[in-house]
Amino acid sequence: MDINEFVEMSLGRWRSQRSTHHLAFAHFEEVTSTIDIEALPTEDSKVIELCKTHDIDPQLACSPFKMSWEGESDWEEEETMAGSTILVPIPDRKNLTKGRLLREQGYAETIPSIGEYQIGEDGTFLLVTKYDRAAAEEKIWFATPNLRFRVSLIKTSNGQGVTTASFSSEIRSLNNK
Amino acid sequence: MDINEFVEMSLGRWRSQRSTHHLAFAHFEEVTSTIDIEALPTEDSKVIELCKTHDIDPQLACSPFKMSWEGESDWEEEETMAGSTILVPIPDRKNLTKGRLLREQGYAETIPSIGEYQIGEDGTFLLVTKYDRAAAEEKIWFATPNLRFRVSLIKTSNGQGVTTASFSSEIRSLNNK
Repeated sequence: MDINEFVEMSLGRWRSQRSTHHLAFAHFEEVTSTIDIEALPTEDSKVIELCKTHDIDPQLACSPFKMSWEGESDWEEEETMAGSTILVPIPDRKNLTKGRLLREQGYAETIPSIGEYQIGEDGTFLLVTKYDRAAAEEKIWFATPNLRFRVSLIKTSNGQGVTTASFSSEIRSLNNK
Repeated sequence: MDINEFVEMSLGRWRSQRSTHHLAFAHFEEVTSTIDIEALPTEDSKVIELCKTHDIDPQLACSPFKMSWEGESDWEEEETMAGSTILVPIPDRKNLTKGRLLREQGYAETIPSIGEYQIGEDGTFLLVTKYDRAAAEEKIWFATPNLRFRVSLIKTSNGQGVTTASFSSEIRSLNNK
């Protein structure tokens, strides 16, 4: 599987169940959300802008997409968490299974991020993103075309310790927009 | 990593946080538990008995172990779930990364089970077990020597649908017995 196929399989509306484990306190957090993943044209002005922010030639971009979410946490019932971000894969030359992923805004920090992705032989997408004071590792794989799983780890910046682990089950919604 | 190394790394006491997603109903279940994994001698009478149940020569067994657990679910607060089982790896000849795993009692049914395991190049242990009316798939991997993760899926017997997905974070307990 290459990055274009992976993005293609991911397009659509997903209903997500996410459980987060705060490891030091053995604390659980649960979130249900709706996630929309939409293809963007490579000539989209925001895609071009994001590439330029990172001094990357926009012509290297493959299958850029927009991800939006709207969810409810069991922690703060009155707060609806919503947001969206733009993601732009920049495959390594001649290798579509490996490269960089530009992101408007990261999970662990509210600044733009650039991660390294790799798609394994079993089709698992692995993304490693380093921030100033933390690192994030995300694994995404499809169980069926309509069900994907995601394991996300937040690590200390030296990569040794894991502070938070979360698991998402994402089911394709048949009620597309 | 071969099966002997994988079992060796797994020995000890673990504190587990487990989240289960019942996919059809978007229902969450949380369990915290203590898991003890102890090596058994290959000449243990229960190991020999389990091999004989499956018509397997007990001399083929590698690194048999006992797994015990005691946990509390958020579903039934007054009930403490406890149990133990014996597991016996039977590696394929000349290949310690692949083989069968005998188990006194399975997750999905209360009868002895026999699964097929495989340890991938990235060290992920994958176990697939077929039952009469369901199939179980379990992935276990180490993030550090003291932290392992486990994703378990319960599938319909044809292997097409996933009914339940669960995620466990298992931290080595420093208060060993």
